[in-house]
Amino acid sequence: MLDITRDRPIKIAVRVQVPVRDHPKFNFVGKLLGPKGNSLKRLQEETMCKMAVLGKGSMRDRKKEEELRLSGDPRYAHLSEDLHVEISTYTAPAEAHARIAYALAEVRRFLVPRS
Amino acid sequence: MLDITRDRPIKIAVRVQVPVRDHPKFNFVGKLLGPKGNSLKRLQEETMCKMAVLGKGSMRDRKKEEELRLSGDPRYAHLSEDLHVEISTYTAPAEAHARIAYALAEVRRFLVPRS
Repeated sequence: MLDITRDRPIKIAVRVQVPVRDHPKFNFVGKLLGPKGNSLKRLQEETMCKMAVLGKGSMRDRKKEEELRLSGDPRYAHLSEDLHVEISTYTAPAEAHARIAYALAEVRRFLVPRS
Repeated sequence: MLDITRDRPIKIAVRVQVPVRDHPKFNFVGKLLGPKGNSLKRLQEETMCKMAVLGKGSMRDRKKEEELRLSGDPRYAHLSEDLHVEISTYTAPAEAHARIAYALAEVRRFLVPRS
Protein backbone atom coordinates (compact mmCIF):
# COMPACT_ATOMS: atom_id res chain seq x y z
CA MET A 1 0.00 0.00 0.00
CA LEU A 2 1.38 3.41 -0.94
CA ASP A 3 2.42 5.84 1.77
CA ILE A 4 1.94 9.17 0.01
CA THR A 5 1.80 11.42 3.07
CA ARG A 6 5.42 10.50 3.84
CA ASP A 7 6.24 10.21 0.15
CA ARG A 8 7.88 6.86 0.74
CA PRO A 9 9.68 6.01 -2.52
CA ILE A 10 8.51 3.12 -4.68
CA LYS A 11 9.97 1.36 -7.67
CA ILE A 12 7.94 1.26 -10.86
CA ALA A 13 9.15 -0.85 -13.78
CA VAL A 14 7.36 -1.27 -17.09
CA ARG A 15 8.26 -3.19 -20.22
CA VAL A 16 7.50 -1.71 -23.60
CA GLN A 17 7.28 -3.92 -26.62
CA VAL A 18 9.31 -2.90 -29.70
CA PRO A 19 7.14 -3.31 -32.84
CA VAL A 20 9.53 -5.55 -34.77
CA ARG A 21 6.68 -7.46 -36.43
CA ASP A 22 5.20 -4.26 -37.84
CA HIS A 23 8.60 -3.05 -39.10
CA PRO A 24 10.84 -6.11 -39.56
CA LYS A 25 13.57 -4.21 -41.43
CA PHE A 26 13.86 -1.24 -39.11
CA ASN A 27 16.87 -0.96 -36.81
CA PHE A 28 15.09 -0.02 -33.60
CA VAL A 29 18.05 -0.89 -31.40
CA GLY A 30 20.31 1.43 -33.38
CA LYS A 31 17.77 4.23 -33.20
CA LEU A 32 17.20 3.76 -29.47
CA LEU A 33 20.89 3.61 -28.57
CA GLY A 34 22.13 6.24 -31.00
CA PRO A 35 25.84 6.91 -31.60
CA LYS A 36 27.88 5.53 -28.68
CA GLY A 37 24.62 4.92 -26.83
CA ASN A 38 24.13 8.65 -26.47
CA SER A 39 20.45 8.75 -27.42
CA LEU A 40 19.45 6.29 -24.74
CA LYS A 41 21.74 7.99 -22.27
CA ARG A 42 20.19 11.40 -22.92
CA LEU A 43 16.69 9.90 -22.81
CA GLN A 44 17.39 8.45 -19.38
CA GLU A 45 18.73 11.72 -18.06
CA GLU A 46 15.82 13.70 -19.45
CA THR A 47 13.14 11.35 -18.12
CA MET A 48 14.90 10.50 -14.84
CA CYS A 49 14.23 6.82 -15.60
CA LYS A 50 16.59 3.91 -16.13
CA MET A 51 16.15 2.28 -19.52
CA ALA A 52 17.48 -0.95 -20.98
CA VAL A 53 16.97 -2.48 -24.39
CA LEU A 54 16.43 -6.18 -23.78
CA GLY A 55 15.23 -9.34 -25.53
CA LYS A 56 15.84 -11.05 -28.84
CA GLY A 57 17.94 -8.88 -31.15
CA SER A 58 19.10 -6.47 -28.45
CA MET A 59 22.76 -7.41 -28.88
CA ARG A 60 24.85 -6.31 -31.82
CA ASP A 61 26.54 -9.70 -32.11
CA ARG A 62 23.81 -12.22 -32.95
CA LYS A 63 26.04 -15.24 -32.55
CA LYS A 64 27.13 -14.12 -29.08
CA GLU A 65 23.49 -13.38 -28.23
CA GLU A 66 22.47 -16.91 -29.21
CA GLU A 67 25.29 -18.37 -27.10
CA LEU A 68 24.30 -16.33 -24.07
CA ARG A 69 20.63 -17.17 -24.58
CA LEU A 70 21.47 -20.88 -24.51
CA SER A 71 23.82 -20.50 -21.51
CA GLY A 72 20.97 -20.78 -19.02
CA ASP A 73 22.41 -17.86 -17.07
CA PRO A 74 19.44 -16.00 -15.52
CA ARG A 75 21.07 -12.66 -16.42
CA TYR A 76 20.45 -13.53 -20.07
CA ALA A 77 16.98 -15.02 -19.71
CA HIS A 78 15.62 -11.83 -21.32
CA LEU A 79 17.23 -12.90 -24.61
CA SER A 80 14.45 -15.47 -25.00
CA GLU A 81 11.82 -12.73 -24.83
CA ASP A 82 10.65 -10.40 -27.57
CA LEU A 83 12.64 -7.21 -28.06
CA HIS A 84 11.54 -4.63 -25.50
CA VAL A 85 12.59 -1.56 -23.54
CA GLU A 86 12.55 -1.84 -19.77
CA ILE A 87 11.86 1.48 -18.06
CA SER A 88 12.16 1.91 -14.31
CA THR A 89 12.37 4.58 -11.67
CA TYR A 90 12.55 4.86 -7.90
CA THR A 91 11.04 7.87 -6.15
CA ALA A 92 7.89 9.11 -4.35
CA PRO A 93 4.68 7.59 -5.80
CA ALA A 94 3.17 10.58 -7.65
CA GLU A 95 6.55 11.55 -9.06
CA ALA A 96 7.28 7.94 -10.05
CA HIS A 97 4.07 7.65 -12.09
CA ALA A 98 4.67 11.08 -13.65
CA ARG A 99 8.19 10.07 -14.70
CA ILE A 100 6.96 6.81 -16.23
CA ALA A 101 4.20 8.69 -18.09
CA TYR A 102 6.76 11.08 -19.55
CA ALA A 103 9.25 8.30 -20.34
CA LEU A 104 6.56 6.33 -22.21
CA ALA A 105 5.68 9.36 -24.31
CA GLU A 106 9.36 9.99 -25.11
CA VAL A 107 10.22 6.35 -25.88
CA ARG A 108 7.20 6.14 -28.16
CA ARG A 109 8.91 8.50 -30.61
CA PHE A 110 11.71 5.94 -31.06
CA LEU A 111 9.24 3.18 -31.82
CA VAL A 112 7.58 4.87 -34.79
CA PRO A 113 10.01 4.60 -37.75
CA ARG A 114 8.60 7.66 -39.56
CA SER A 115 9.05 10.17 -36.80
CA MET B 1 4.30 -6.05 -22.09
CA LEU B 2 2.98 -2.60 -23.00
CA ASP B 3 1.97 -1.87 -26.57
CA ILE B 4 2.48 1.88 -26.74
CA THR B 5 2.66 2.28 -30.50
CA ARG B 6 -0.97 1.15 -30.73
CA ASP B 7 -1.79 2.77 -27.39
CA ARG B 8 -3.48 -0.39 -26.21
CA PRO B 9 -5.27 0.56 -22.98
CA ILE B 10 -4.13 -0.85 -19.65
CA LYS B 11 -5.61 -0.83 -16.18
CA ILE B 12 -3.57 0.65 -13.36
CA ALA B 13 -4.80 0.33 -9.80
CA VAL B 14 -3.00 1.63 -6.72
CA ARG B 15 -3.90 1.56 -3.05
CA VAL B 16 -3.12 4.54 -0.89
CA GLN B 17 -2.92 4.17 2.84
CA VAL B 18 -4.93 6.62 4.97
CA PRO B 19 -2.75 7.82 7.88
CA VAL B 20 -5.16 6.91 10.68
CA ARG B 21 -2.33 6.05 13.08
CA ASP B 22 -0.79 9.51 12.68
CA HIS B 23 -4.17 11.23 13.15
CA PRO B 24 -6.44 8.85 15.09
CA LYS B 25 -9.14 11.47 15.74
CA PHE B 26 -9.41 12.86 12.24
CA ASN B 27 -12.44 11.97 10.11
CA PHE B 28 -10.65 11.15 6.87
CA VAL B 29 -13.63 9.32 5.40
CA GLY B 30 -15.88 12.35 5.92
CA LYS B 31 -13.28 14.65 4.36
CA LEU B 32 -12.74 12.36 1.38
CA LEU B 33 -16.41 11.80 0.66
CA GLY B 34 -17.63 15.31 1.44
CA PRO B 35 -21.33 16.24 1.60
CA LYS B 36 -23.40 13.61 -0.22
CA GLY B 37 -20.14 12.10 -1.48
CA ASN B 38 -19.63 15.13 -3.69
CA SER B 39 -15.94 15.67 -2.91
CA LEU B 40 -14.97 12.16 -3.98
CA LYS B 41 -17.26 12.41 -6.98
CA ARG B 42 -15.66 15.66 -8.13
CA LEU B 43 -12.18 14.28 -7.46
CA GLN B 44 -12.90 11.29 -9.68
CA GLU B 45 -14.20 13.47 -12.51
CA GLU B 46 -11.26 15.84 -12.29
CA THR B 47 -8.61 13.11 -12.24
CA MET B 48 -10.42 10.73 -14.63
CA CYS B 49 -9.78 7.94 -12.13
CA LYS B 50 -12.16 5.73 -10.19
CA MET B 51 -11.73 6.02 -6.45
CA ALA B 52 -13.10 3.99 -3.57
CA VAL B 53 -12.60 4.38 0.16
CA LEU B 54 -12.11 0.87 1.50
CA GLY B 55 -10.93 -0.98 4.60
CA LYS B 56 -11.53 -0.78 8.32
CA GLY B 57 -13.63 2.29 9.19
CA SER B 58 -14.75 3.00 5.65
CA MET B 59 -18.44 2.45 6.46
CA ARG B 60 -20.50 4.92 8.43
CA ASP B 61 -22.24 2.15 10.38
CA ARG B 62 -19.51 0.38 12.37
CA LYS B 63 -21.79 -2.43 13.56
CA LYS B 64 -22.88 -3.18 9.99
CA GLU B 65 -19.24 -3.02 8.90
CA GLU B 66 -18.27 -5.59 11.53
CA GLU B 67 -21.11 -7.87 10.43
CA LEU B 68 -20.09 -7.65 6.79
CA ARG B 69 -16.43 -8.17 7.66
CA LEU B 70 -17.32 -11.39 9.46
CA SER B 71 -19.66 -12.56 6.68
CA GLY B 72 -16.81 -14.10 4.68
CA ASP B 73 -18.25 -12.54 1.52
CA PRO B 74 -15.25 -11.75 -0.73
CA ARG B 75 -16.83 -8.38 -1.64
CA TYR B 76 -16.22 -7.30 1.96
CA ALA B 77 -12.76 -8.81 2.40
CA HIS B 78 -11.35 -5.26 2.18
CA LEU B 79 -12.97 -4.51 5.57
CA SER B 80 -10.23 -6.57 7.22
CA GLU B 81 -7.55 -4.30 5.71
CA ASP B 82 -6.36 -0.91 6.91
CA LEU B 83 -8.31 2.10 5.72
CA HIS B 84 -7.21 3.04 2.21
CA VAL B 85 -8.21 4.69 -1.03
CA GLU B 86 -8.18 2.55 -4.14
CA ILE B 87 -7.47 4.54 -7.29
CA SER B 88 -7.77 3.02 -10.74
CA THR B 89 -7.96 3.99 -14.37
CA TYR B 90 -8.14 2.32 -17.76
CA THR B 91 -6.60 4.00 -20.78
CA ALA B 92 -3.43 4.12 -22.96
CA PRO B 93 -0.24 3.51 -20.93
CA ALA B 94 1.31 7.00 -20.83
CA GLU B 95 -2.06 8.60 -20.12
CA ALA B 96 -2.83 6.00 -17.44
CA HIS B 97 0.40 6.75 -15.54
CA ALA B 98 -0.16 10.50 -15.92
CA ARG B 99 -3.69 10.20 -14.51
CA ILE B 100 -2.50 8.15 -11.55
CA ALA B 101 0.28 10.68 -10.88
CA TYR B 102 -2.23 13.51 -10.84
CA ALA B 103 -4.76 11.55 -8.75
CA LEU B 104 -2.09 10.76 -6.14
CA ALA B 105 -1.17 14.44 -5.86
CA GLU B 106 -4.82 15.43 -5.50
CA VAL B 107 -5.73 12.69 -3.00
CA ARG B 108 -2.72 13.62 -0.91
CA ARG B 109 -4.38 16.91 -0.01
CA PHE B 110 -7.20 14.98 1.67
CA LEU B 111 -4.77 12.94 3.73
CA VAL B 112 -3.07 15.88 5.44
CA PRO B 113 -5.48 17.18 8.13
CA ARG B 114 -4.01 20.70 8.15
CA SER B 115 -4.43 21.48 4.50
